[in-house]
Amino acid sequence: MSNKMNELDGISIRDLILTHDIALLPLGAVEVHGPHLPIGTDSFLAEKLCEKLSERVPSLILPVIHYTQVWSLGEMKGSVSISNELLTQLLCEILLETERNGFRMAVVINTHLGNNGAIKEAARKALKERPDFKILYFTYPGAGEILGEVMGAGNFHGGFFHADEIETSYMLYLCKEHVDMSKAVDETPLVPELIDVTPIRWSEFTETAVMGNAKDATEEKGRKVIEYVLDRMVSLIEKAKER
Amino acid sequence: MSNKMNELDGISIRDLILTHDIALLPLGAVEVHGPHLPIGTDSFLAEKLCEKLSERVPSLILPVIHYTQVWSLGEMKGSVSISNELLTQLLCEILLETERNGFRMAVVINTHLGNNGAIKEAARKALKERPDFKILYFTYPGAGEILGEVMGAGNFHGGFFHADEIETSYMLYLCKEHVDMSKAVDETPLVPELIDVTPIRWSEFTETAVMGNAKDATEEKGRKVIEYVLDRMVSLIEKAKER
Amino acid sequence: MSNKMNELDGISIRDLILTHDIALLPLGAVEVHGPHLPIGTDSFLAEKLCEKLSERVPSLILPVIHYTQVWSLGEMKGSVSISNELLTQLLCEILLETERNGFRMAVVINTHLGNNGAIKEAARKALKERPDFKILYFTYPGAGEILGEVMGAGNFHGGFFHADEIETSYMLYLCKEHVDMSKAVDETPLVPELIDVTPIRWSEFTETAVMGNAKDATEEKGRKVIEYVLDRMVSLIEKAKER
Amino acid sequence: MSNKMNELDGISIRDLILTHDIALLPLGAVEVHGPHLPIGTDSFLAEKLCEKLSERVPSLILPVIHYTQVWSLGEMKGSVSISNELLTQLLCEILLETERNGFRMAVVINTHLGNNGAIKEAARKALKERPDFKILYFTYPGAGEILGEVMGAGNFHGGFFHADEIETSYMLYLCKEHVDMSKAVDETPLVPELIDVTPIRWSEFTETAVMGNAKDATEEKGRKVIEYVLDRMVSLIEKAKER
Amino acid sequence: MSNKMNELDGISIRDLILTHDIALLPLGAVEVHGPHLPIGTDSFLAEKLCEKLSERVPSLILPVIHYTQVWSLGEMKGSVSISNELLTQLLCEILLETERNGFRMAVVINTHLGNNGAIKEAARKALKERPDFKILYFTYPGAGEILGEVMGAGNFHGGFFHADEIETSYMLYLCKEHVDMSKAVDETPLVPELIDVTPIRWSEFTETAVMGNAKDATEEKGRKVIEYVLDRMVSLIEKAKER
Amino acid sequence: MSNKMNELDGISIRDLILTHDIALLPLGAVEVHGPHLPIGTDSFLAEKLCEKLSERVPSLILPVIHYTQVWSLGEMKGSVSISNELLTQLLCEILLETERNGFRMAVVINTHLGNNGAIKEAARKALKERPDFKILYFTYPGAGEILGEVMGAGNFHGGFFHADEIETSYMLYLCKEHVDMSKAVDETPLVPELIDVTPIRWSEFTETAVMGNAKDATEEKGRKVIEYVLDRMVSLIEKAKER
Repeated sequence: MSNKMNELDGISIRDLILTHDIALLPLGAVEVHGPHLPIGTDSFLAEKLCEKLSERVPSLILPVIHYTQVWSLGEMKGSVSISNELLTQLLCEILLETERNGFRMAVVINTHLGNNGAIKEAARKALKERPDFKILYFTYPGAGEILGEVMGAGNFHGGFFHADEIETSYMLYLCKEHVDMSKAVDETPLVPELIDVTPIRWSEFTETAVMGNAKDATEEKGRKVIEYVLDRMVSLIEKAKER
Repeated sequence: MSNKMNELDGISIRDLILTHDIALLPLGAVEVHGPHLPIGTDSFLAEKLCEKLSERVPSLILPVIHYTQVWSLGEMKGSVSISNELLTQLLCEILLETERNGFRMAVVINTHLGNNGAIKEAARKALKERPDFKILYFTYPGAGEILGEVMGAGNFHGGFFHADEIETSYMLYLCKEHVDMSKAVDETPLVPELIDVTPIRWSEFTETAVMGNAKDATEEKGRKVIEYVLDRMVSLIEKAKER
Repeated sequence: MSNKMNELDGISIRDLILTHDIALLPLGAVEVHGPHLPIGTDSFLAEKLCEKLSERVPSLILPVIHYTQVWSLGEMKGSVSISNELLTQLLCEILLETERNGFRMAVVINTHLGNNGAIKEAARKALKERPDFKILYFTYPGAGEILGEVMGAGNFHGGFFHADEIETSYMLYLCKEHVDMSKAVDETPLVPELIDVTPIRWSEFTETAVMGNAKDATEEKGRKVIEYVLDRMVSLIEKAKER
Repeated sequence: MSNKMNELDGISIRDLILTHDIALLPLGAVEVHGPHLPIGTDSFLAEKLCEKLSERVPSLILPVIHYTQVWSLGEMKGSVSISNELLTQLLCEILLETERNGFRMAVVINTHLGNNGAIKEAARKALKERPDFKILYFTYPGAGEILGEVMGAGNFHGGFFHADEIETSYMLYLCKEHVDMSKAVDETPLVPELIDVTPIRWSEFTETAVMGNAKDATEEKGRKVIEYVLDRMVSLIEKAKER
Repeated sequence: MSNKMNELDGISIRDLILTHDIALLPLGAVEVHGPHLPIGTDSFLAEKLCEKLSERVPSLILPVIHYTQVWSLGEMKGSVSISNELLTQLLCEILLETERNGFRMAVVINTHLGNNGAIKEAARKALKERPDFKILYFTYPGAGEILGEVMGAGNFHGGFFHADEIETSYMLYLCKEHVDMSKAVDETPLVPELIDVTPIRWSEFTETAVMGNAKDATEEKGRKVIEYVLDRMVSLIEKAKER
Repeated sequence: MSNKMNELDGISIRDLILTHDIALLPLGAVEVHGPHLPIGTDSFLAEKLCEKLSERVPSLILPVIHYTQVWSLGEMKGSVSISNELLTQLLCEILLETERNGFRMAVVINTHLGNNGAIKEAARKALKERPDFKILYFTYPGAGEILGEVMGAGNFHGGFFHADEIETSYMLYLCKEHVDMSKAVDETPLVPELIDVTPIRWSEFTETAVMGNAKDATEEKGRKVIEYVLDRMVSLIEKAKER
């Protein structure tokens, strides 16, 4: 039987929630990811991560949220962004509904950095109303520990991994059918020094939205990092259960 | 090439929007649909309708919105509901983003009646800001004209078609793989007379959320109505282009 | 003694609420109604309906709300519209205050179709805070069952009865002093087919806001429908008491 | 012809606004006013003031707003209060609609002190959007200059005139039919010294809501003050026209 | 040891709150005050008043709020204004936090008239959530009783004391180091009669924002009024404790 | 002449803004900082940083914002927190007012990590309304590059520097008068591994809020880092001018 909530029937789910009391919420983005990756890259990754995680932890997968905050690439065609307040409220309401359904823990599986502020705020708000509920949020936890070892030129300008060696490798491992490596490019845009201290749209310094050498991506690199991340997720969920 | 926005790459889409300047936005629900239909029934239907419509009208399909307003079945396990204000705001922001992307028209393909108020309000708000944009919203347009002819016991208590002969037939035609007819039931709950004049949760009068005889559903019935509806959609879009 | 709350003194009302524990809330509109009906048509009708209903059911009549959502005719001079959110919030706060006053049930007597979304939403919100309170909303309940029989050309394009045979007949029966039949016209505007699927202001297709043959209106026709509607209201209130 | 907007037909009003380009907006309250005055006292007074003012200044009278902020007496049965934010937003939206209708000036005729904060805020907000519009707000302007001369014990504790000699005299002059002098009482509640520096409900110090000697009220006293106030209104409107 | 909260360490404060269970919250403004007084005049005054008051009443002084509502002088350079809603919400949240810290009473020491609406509204809201908490708000209580006696031409147009004899005297007594009497001017702007009935920016009638004869200010005048006001504050706080 | 806006008179500032067209906005916190540092630590630091920066860059210093978001230590006595939405809105309104005053650039000098989300969001919002305005936000820019070299045990658990060697050194350099080194402690709380993936209050793992060895702090260490940071600020401001 599937453990995707959307594919379950409305009767079986009542019992399933009792044994699979962790809800996984995939959170992606509708955002340009260069010429070789699809616009739904973040959503595809979030859903695939949930599938793999649900094989290791008794859990159900909630439907994905595609529309999230895409400010940095928000002026490019192909991106669809919603406001931070709206995303925060959306997450908060869904988290509370998850608790109402009888789940004991909700785990937000996020793949888009721009969502982190909203997720954190939503989790705090939801916990204020339901203090006994457990909410985790993961954006590739542990990846930083292994990325340097696995990747080549990848992780440039701390945190700006986008449509690059790293993310493309993730996609090659998790959704190869949506990658067209023949279109992969090697670009290292000159990110303005001011980017951390003033709002700057990425369209100021990149045409393609590729932030590194996508050509160096391989399925094996993706596998190494993603499996490491999945192990970490499992371990963190175990720790959260004990709190 | 796909015409699902999420599967398109971030470069090709720039030209594609010029020739496929209608954006289709599938709007579903996370809602219990009895023992034989999946919780994501409305989302599956909305996405499939968009696929079929995009074969007839040059258009791109936006990612689906799964989380919508599910008040009537909002106390059942398996449903996940967001507030009406939030849904309205979400739709409004996405519609405006659609216009920013260069589309000339957005068509909301909705399959969940509870969303109608929010859609209408969102469309009015978005048009206030972008008066030249075109926004259509479809919830099975024209279906009412043919349902009586096609279905058997189907359309009971004006409008309460849910997980019944009608909706099950739609699913049999559009997503047969998600229907388990062996679990289909025939239920005609006693809907309280007050239902139109006071808020009443459906859990007051149904255990399964099936509102009719799902056993009578057939793929052929679904085909007839859905094709009729799709023709109407095409015709309405043509009319909207001329305004 | 009056049963209009505004006319009662501040001491007597304390006991009166104990015996007249149903609050009737008339909800109208400030909206153009053609050359023969006043702008306050909906408000006049709502207040008169409350008066007649209060003769049959022990109840008190709250002051009327004149300002409501008038989108369709909202660009005509003579209409004054407020936003849907505001109306929703206004109704919700008043409903909660009604409960605080000690009433056991509130009945919204609405005469303007554009208000229905806000009323429903407000009722759901108020009940979330006060689950034991009872809230009904009536917009001519049962009228649909008898209109065809009583009226002539009246009920055209399902639901667009405005300043026509029907509404004029209501006014002739309930507030004859505000009708000038010498100015009544017969107009059947060509309503665009798109009206149900995209926001369209009525000023696109009518100059007068009359949507039918107002000349055919008679007091007797109004009497028949209104009395039928009042009977239904009484019966629905009785049913609601038993829940 | 009436100059109450609600009684005008939807065609005549188009020309009338050109010659009567001042909109009068009566603002009352649903609030307990002792045993001898009706709950709708403020609304009655506001409407009557508008009628008298419209005889002196070419203007149209908008429908009254009954529901306003009633905090001080908001815990008594018979009062219905809405929040300050809501009232502010309501006034702002209506003022902007007044401008859209073609009026050149809106004059809020207020009779309930608790509304003053919301009115001022609403006027500032509306003017921010429509800087050329003119908005006046009157709460018995000039009354303070003549009250001491006309009334006896009336104006006690600076500003707390409520259901007392003053307000009862106003009612005797403007709506005698709603006053029952046989029930008038003479009460001088001991208002806590802290009332200006902390929120205190009036129910702490009065059972009836009468804040003075209502028995001393006379129609003649009301006439003197009200006519003085009306003269001042006319003069202020003239000054505002010239700005 | 200081009784300014900002200067206390994070351990000592835990005990101090038990013995100093009144929190004083200074509320000023960033607003032009003529050529002889600083832009922070209201903030300086509020903080100094708190210091003097805390010598007489066991209390702790919260950090000052500088940014408040400055509408009247809000178009002048040097003023920084926030909206009324925002100020209301800010005060409400801080008042609730004060209660959470264990204080029994919060006293808002305000020196800017434009803040009064927001303070009152915030206090009502906070008390709705924490009915047992005590909240006082002071804007020079009692000053009106002694101003006439102490000042010369000072108190013109009831309430418009700004950068004039009165306020300058306060500053001479409380923060002499921030006054430059050599720049003091004597100005009596012609305040429009409409100022109480329509929104008027002060920049319409004054270039300097001085509303009286600042030259007549003396430290002794300031001392007399301020000491009188402080006595009143102490007495009101005592009364509030007994409630 | 001072360049603190609050100390400037209302006339001189008009010219000063022309030559000092950068506004520095100090943003602190009301938050427990252990036994040796004051609750206002972040505010003191932000103000001192502004003073030092204004000596190097022609600029005016806006009044400090004390009340900000203090979630992590928000349950300890001595902390006063406001919500993230409120802080965002507050910053946005003040930034827009800064632009109205004629400044060409606003620089937020922040010392509290918890404020970063709100600042970024506020800057984006303000720039949406005023795209030509420049907004920078600094939270010790460049400090990370030099901390390791200067401090001892300081920077533990990536980012949790609070009341520790680092922050205490800053205080010793900038506001020695508010530090009591005799109370400094050495504490290395066991921060839960889950802290980055779920909301955890710091009161779960620390009694004092000291997150390191405060005893190792010296004025010289503080000087080195702070001067480095100030140089970076100057350089970033120069770069921002050229954009």
